[in-house]
Amino acid sequence: MNINTGNVTFPKGFTASGVYCGIRKNKSKLDLALIYSQTECAAAACYTKNLVKGAPIYVTMDHISNGKAKAVICNSGNANTCNADGIDVAKLTCAELAKELNIKDSDIVIASTGVIGQPLNVGAILSGIPSLVSKLSRDGGDSAAEAIMTTDLAKKEIAISIEIGGKEVRIGGFAKGSGMINPNMATMLSFITTDVAIESEILKEALTLSVNDTYNMVSVDGDTSTNDMVSVLANGLAENAVINEKNDDFYTFLKALTFVNTHLSRMIARDGEGATRLLECIVQNAADVLVAKKAAKAVISSSLVKAAMFGADANWGRILCAIGYAGCELDITKVDIAFSSVKGTITVCKNGAGVDFDEVTAKEILLTDEIKILVDLKQGEQTATAWGCDLTYDYVKINGDYRT
Amino acid sequence: MNINTGNVTFPKGFTASGVYCGIRKNKSKLDLALIYSQTECAAAACYTKNLVKGAPIYVTMDHISNGKAKAVICNSGNANTCNADGIDVAKLTCAELAKELNIKDSDIVIASTGVIGQPLNVGAILSGIPSLVSKLSRDGGDSAAEAIMTTDLAKKEIAISIEIGGKEVRIGGFAKGSGMINPNMATMLSFITTDVAIESEILKEALTLSVNDTYNMVSVDGDTSTNDMVSVLANGLAENAVINEKNDDFYTFLKALTFVNTHLSRMIARDGEGATRLLECIVQNAADVLVAKKAAKAVISSSLVKAAMFGADANWGRILCAIGYAGCELDITKVDIAFSSVKGTITVCKNGAGVDFDEVTAKEILLTDEIKILVDLKQGEQTATAWGCDLTYDYVKINGDYRT
Repeated sequence: MNINTGNVTFPKGFTASGVYCGIRKNKSKLDLALIYSQTECAAAACYTKNLVKGAPIYVTMDHISNGKAKAVICNSGNANTCNADGIDVAKLTCAELAKELNIKDSDIVIASTGVIGQPLNVGAILSGIPSLVSKLSRDGGDSAAEAIMTTDLAKKEIAISIEIGGKEVRIGGFAKGSGMINPNMATMLSFITTDVAIESEILKEALTLSVNDTYNMVSVDGDTSTNDMVSVLANGLAENAVINEKNDDFYTFLKALTFVNTHLSRMIARDGEGATRLLECIVQNAADVLVAKKAAKAVISSSLVKAAMFGADANWGRILCAIGYAGCELDITKVDIAFSSVKGTITVCKNGAGVDFDEVTAKEILLTDEIKILVDLKQGEQTATAWGCDLTYDYVKINGDYRT
Repeated sequence: MNINTGNVTFPKGFTASGVYCGIRKNKSKLDLALIYSQTECAAAACYTKNLVKGAPIYVTMDHISNGKAKAVICNSGNANTCNADGIDVAKLTCAELAKELNIKDSDIVIASTGVIGQPLNVGAILSGIPSLVSKLSRDGGDSAAEAIMTTDLAKKEIAISIEIGGKEVRIGGFAKGSGMINPNMATMLSFITTDVAIESEILKEALTLSVNDTYNMVSVDGDTSTNDMVSVLANGLAENAVINEKNDDFYTFLKALTFVNTHLSRMIARDGEGATRLLECIVQNAADVLVAKKAAKAVISSSLVKAAMFGADANWGRILCAIGYAGCELDITKVDIAFSSVKGTITVCKNGAGVDFDEVTAKEILLTDEIKILVDLKQGEQTATAWGCDLTYDYVKINGDYRT
């Protein structure tokens, strides 16, 4: 596998663009993004499981029910959720974009992110579409990635290539995260492009498998958003033999897709609102994988663990406590816990009880920006990893007055 | 019902005391509490559902399996949890106290609260027991309530009287809360005393019913502690006809007990770590009571809702979002949301969509220390209330370095 610079325009046949159209008050921040494939793509998406869903989610579900798409449009600054005219606004956006691109409305994936329950100024979007389309280019991925950011501090992008059946296959993607992020089916916005040749049914299967181990294992604050979506568009320009079953090519592609999604998931966790540290909890030797997943998610979701990590405090009791209330059957008296970072590894709990450890060393390990919490259940062979971030003053600051 | 001053020593026949025995570094903070009944009590308790349980929980479970007790001992500053010698330490404490009080070990309810996984200095407790016993008095309730506090800022106590069968029945209690508090069976320490005459089986039933609607509807930070317990001791000195079935007297007592537990639950929420506001979410007109409970708990548990309330930001979209991921079946397009406080009431969402409202009025309503979030599901007749607090800089500060 080769890792490259760039994002969604790295695969063949994709262009992208980002513009400021007037949804945000701050004119220096782009707020409308477009991804376009010159040929029709097999398309698949995973959506939030929140009962409250943004209007664009419903429109996208309808549009890609046939497994096809050619373009993705996404605005930031307003989620177009809980608005009486939300569906109309989303449809009008797609109609205008379809006209401008000379494609069908139903070839468009649409997404929105931002504040809930405030009317979205569709006039701004409509007025921005012509320049959005005219700016489409192979270099436009950066602007598009920037245009979907809300409280994100860093762009989240990746571009890789692999070989499938002797052909170079490229995958690119970008994502936005930050707040209202909790593992429960696609937990933010992430747009993946690839030039692999694959049927849409099997593409959907690959995406679902990958999402369960990546985005669904991220938590920033325990809140599952109303607008979360991961979509993947595959235009086939790599000219590999079309993947239409779970053969070796499928698993090669799945592995690469999961690499991409893991990378973006980690970036989302690292850039959680107010975060100063990435937390990675690896639960090993569980009796089954669901136990490992539940335990890992409970640890990285615990406000007390997150606050302790902010303070670089090796308070392992809170980790054991979180495993204890994770809602899974396990023998807590077998559990070992260690902290690990570039500064080293230190065991703090053995068989469910504390062990003597050097507080100075522990502090040094925790005073880094990427901390691994290693949990060994010693009661099976299954493993899961979850990602989160520390809980800081800035999380409170950002969310204490986001809307007004 | 009459509300009085005082706490656990308000019912007839109870004395209490609190001393500093040396568990805490800070010598000006009491750390060991005792409650004692001159006659044997019917006793019942509810415990944490965390798989990790403090050693005192196991010892108490064993001691009151016969439905009887005469004393409660509780230390703060150390949870006696995840320590290899935890059970021994708890048993040794009970043995020493039993000797000093001339009662049976099994007549003692024992509890601990504080940091997890650090050895508890049993020598300190043993040396404190003689003075703890010698200080027992009708005036000692205050010292006892103070001695169980950890990061609590306010004492949480109540004393009431009711009439049952022509007799005055008294109930008193105190509690500690603050952090690691989440609704999942008894979510902190709360000790209730009463002089009602009641059989232990039916007392246990009353306590469970009451706990489900009170302590289990409180969340401060989503973390279910390892040491939570609510216990009630009933010594019968009120001389009412013994309650041994679900008759009118039972329901009169249950109502009073729930009043006491509601009061303590609200105090726990109000004094959540770092809290500046009490949040009360009342979900009305649900199809069933579990839906109402789940929705109310999701709202007061949401970090984003809690941070918005800290900022006095009427961000109702986050409330609707939390209801949406609460995991219950409901029609989100029927939901109305209003904010209410001593400053007035304002509707912000109707039928799942935003309505125009005056931001200045909303701010005024939210800039108070007790906020009601009123959710009308309009799809049934069931109601539930949950209590929480806002998420503040101080929560992060307190928990970023609690242990070291």
